[in-house]
Amino acid sequence: MIETDILIIGAGPAGLFTVFEAGLLKMRCHIIDALPQIGGQLSELYPKKPIFDIPGFPSVLAGGLIDNLYEQIKQFKPGFTLNEYAINLTKIEENLFEVTTNKGTVHRAKAIVIAGGLGSFEPKKPLIDEISSFEEKGVNYFVKNPEDYTGKNVVIAGGGDSALDWAIHLSEITSSLTLIHRRNEFRGALDSVEKVRLLKQKGKINLITPAEVTQLHGNETLEAVSVEHEGETKTIKTDYFIPLFGLVPRLGPIANWGLEIERNAVKVDNSTDYSTNIPGIYAVGDINTYPHKMKLILCGFHEAAMACQSIYQRLNPNKKFVLKYTTVSGIDGFDGTRKEAEKQVVASID
Amino acid sequence: MIETDILIIGAGPAGLFTVFEAGLLKMRCHIIDALPQIGGQLSELYPKKPIFDIPGFPSVLAGGLIDNLYEQIKQFKPGFTLNEYAINLTKIEENLFEVTTNKGTVHRAKAIVIAGGLGSFEPKKPLIDEISSFEEKGVNYFVKNPEDYTGKNVVIAGGGDSALDWAIHLSEITSSLTLIHRRNEFRGALDSVEKVRLLKQKGKINLITPAEVTQLHGNETLEAVSVEHEGETKTIKTDYFIPLFGLVPRLGPIANWGLEIERNAVKVDNSTDYSTNIPGIYAVGDINTYPHKMKLILCGFHEAAMACQSIYQRLNPNKKFVLKYTTVSGIDGFDGTRKEAEKQVVASID
Repeated sequence: MIETDILIIGAGPAGLFTVFEAGLLKMRCHIIDALPQIGGQLSELYPKKPIFDIPGFPSVLAGGLIDNLYEQIKQFKPGFTLNEYAINLTKIEENLFEVTTNKGTVHRAKAIVIAGGLGSFEPKKPLIDEISSFEEKGVNYFVKNPEDYTGKNVVIAGGGDSALDWAIHLSEITSSLTLIHRRNEFRGALDSVEKVRLLKQKGKINLITPAEVTQLHGNETLEAVSVEHEGETKTIKTDYFIPLFGLVPRLGPIANWGLEIERNAVKVDNSTDYSTNIPGIYAVGDINTYPHKMKLILCGFHEAAMACQSIYQRLNPNKKFVLKYTTVSGIDGFDGTRKEAEKQVVASID
Repeated sequence: MIETDILIIGAGPAGLFTVFEAGLLKMRCHIIDALPQIGGQLSELYPKKPIFDIPGFPSVLAGGLIDNLYEQIKQFKPGFTLNEYAINLTKIEENLFEVTTNKGTVHRAKAIVIAGGLGSFEPKKPLIDEISSFEEKGVNYFVKNPEDYTGKNVVIAGGGDSALDWAIHLSEITSSLTLIHRRNEFRGALDSVEKVRLLKQKGKINLITPAEVTQLHGNETLEAVSVEHEGETKTIKTDYFIPLFGLVPRLGPIANWGLEIERNAVKVDNSTDYSTNIPGIYAVGDINTYPHKMKLILCGFHEAAMACQSIYQRLNPNKKFVLKYTTVSGIDGFDGTRKEAEKQVVASID
C-alpha cells in the first residue's frame, strides 16, 4: 500500500506543479496517471508542438515544459503509479482516503487533488469483432516499449502523426512493418510524411492505402490480420496490430465518486480554494469547472497553489499559514538538497 | 493624449502578462509605472536574485523573468508611460476612463487593470532639513542615468546592496565617490562587499563609517554635505548626494479612486473576474485581495488572464468569447508578426 500526504490524480502540468506547491509546505505527493509517462496530453498528444501562452516563455515545446516541471519538482520526490487509472475511492476516516487503481494498487492519502485534465485519454478502438480478446495479446493501442517490437512483424493502422511517427521509428527494428490507412491522404508533419515516403521507396515500410483491417486471427495470441483493400481482402501475418486512431478523453471512474459534475468536469469552489463538494478532495486544471473557467495551463498552476494552501491549513488546523517567498526562504528538497539565493553577508570594510 | 483599450497601472510581471492576454483578444494596452524601467520590484529590488516558484522554471533570475515576459508581449506593442505615477481617475462615460499622471500625461482607456504590486515604491528619505528643496537639484533617490555622474563629485549614503553596487559602478566614472553608512557593517552580496573593499584600498572609493549626512548646503543646487563622523562634523564638497535607504511601498493616489480597499490592497471579486467595485476597473497581482489570496507572481498571471477575458466580454457584449489555444491558433502580433506551430500537411504517399 502506498501512503502519502496528497494523492494527485493526473500527471499533466497542473498535477506536476501541485507537487511543487505541496513540497514548499512540506507535504509529500504521489501521482496516479493512466498514461505510461508523465505530462498528460502535452507528452502524449503534442510533445513537439510549441505553446506560446505559458507566462515567461515566449515559446516552449509542450514536452520541454513537462521536462522543466519535472526538474522543478524532483527534489520533492513525488511517487508515481503510471499506466494505471484510479477506480475506487473510499473515505476511511476524516482526512484519510483510499484510492484503488484498475490494477489493484492501493493508495492512502490525507487529501486528494484531481488534476485529470480532460479526463483519462482512452484510445479510439477500431470496430473489429473480438478486438478486445486480443488486447495485450498482440493488439496494443499505445507503444509503450518500442524494443518489444524488435524483429517482429508489425501492422500499424492510422493516418495521423502517431501512426506516421511510430511507423518511422519501429521500421528500424521490426522484421516487417505495414502501415494501413483508410484514406490515401495522411495528416501530419511534412517531415514525417516525407520520411514515410522514403521508407516506402526503400521497402522498409509496406504501405497499403486506402485500406482497413477488418478481422483479427490467432489462437492464444494474434497471428494475422485481414485487410480490405480496393474491394479485395488479403491476410497479412503479423505479431502485432497497433491501431493508432487517436485518443478520446473520458472522465472515467471518478464520475462515480460522488463529486458534483457539470458538463463533464468537476465543480469546484473557485471563490476559496478549488475544493470539490467532498471535503478533502480538490480539483485543479482542465478537469474542474467554475464560473468563467478558462482551460489554460497557467490557470491550473494558480489553482494548484491555492488548493495546496487549503490542504495545508486543513491538515494543520493549529498552525498559522505563512506564505514564504522562495527567493527569500530558498527550497529544501525531500532529497536533502537545498536551493537558495546567494546569501547576503554582513561585514565591515576595513 | 494617449488612447488605448486597456490602461495597466504597474509594469511588474502581472501587468506585463496582462498585455499578452489582452493581445490574444486583440485588445491594445498601455502601461504606467512610477519606476524608470519595467519589471516592478523584480527589476528594482532583486533583478539578480533567483525565483524558484515560477511554474516551468526550476530557477529564474527576477530580471531574466522580466526580460522573458517583455519578449513574450512585445509583438502586442504595449505603450509605456514610465517614471510617472497615476494620480487622477475620472470616468468620462461608460467604458471610458481618463487617468492623469503626476507629470500631467493624460491617458484614456476603455478599461483599467491595476497591477500595482505592493504599491508604488517610494524611497525612504533621510531626515535632513530641507532635503526636499534639493531634490533633483543634486539629491537623487534613484540612479536613473549613470552617465549623468561622469566627472562629478558624488556622495552615496546607505549600507545595503544598492549603495554598494552603485558605489562600485559610479566610482569608475566620477571625479570622487564617497560612501557613507551609519554603521560599520554593510549588508550585501559577498562579492559587492569585496569589491568595495578593493576600491577603497585603491583610493577609488572614500569610505566613511560609522557616519551620517546631517546637513545639505548650496544655493541653487547642492554644493556640499555635512557629515557627522565619530563626534566630529566635516563638510564634503559634492555635486550629488544619493541616499539609498531602501524603498517603501505605498498604495498612493489610487487609494482615492473610490475603490474598496482592505488591508492596503484593492478588494476584487475572485469568484468571477477579479473586478473591483468600480465596473471596468480590475486589480490583479499583489495589489489585490480576496479570501485566501496568496501574493505569488503565478497567481497574478491567472488573475490577469481572467480579467482580460472579462474585459473582452464587457467591451464586446455581442460577441461570444471563444477560448483559443496558442498552439492551435498561433499568435498574430500587432506588429504584423505571426507565431505558429508548424503546420500539418495532408498528403498521400506514393
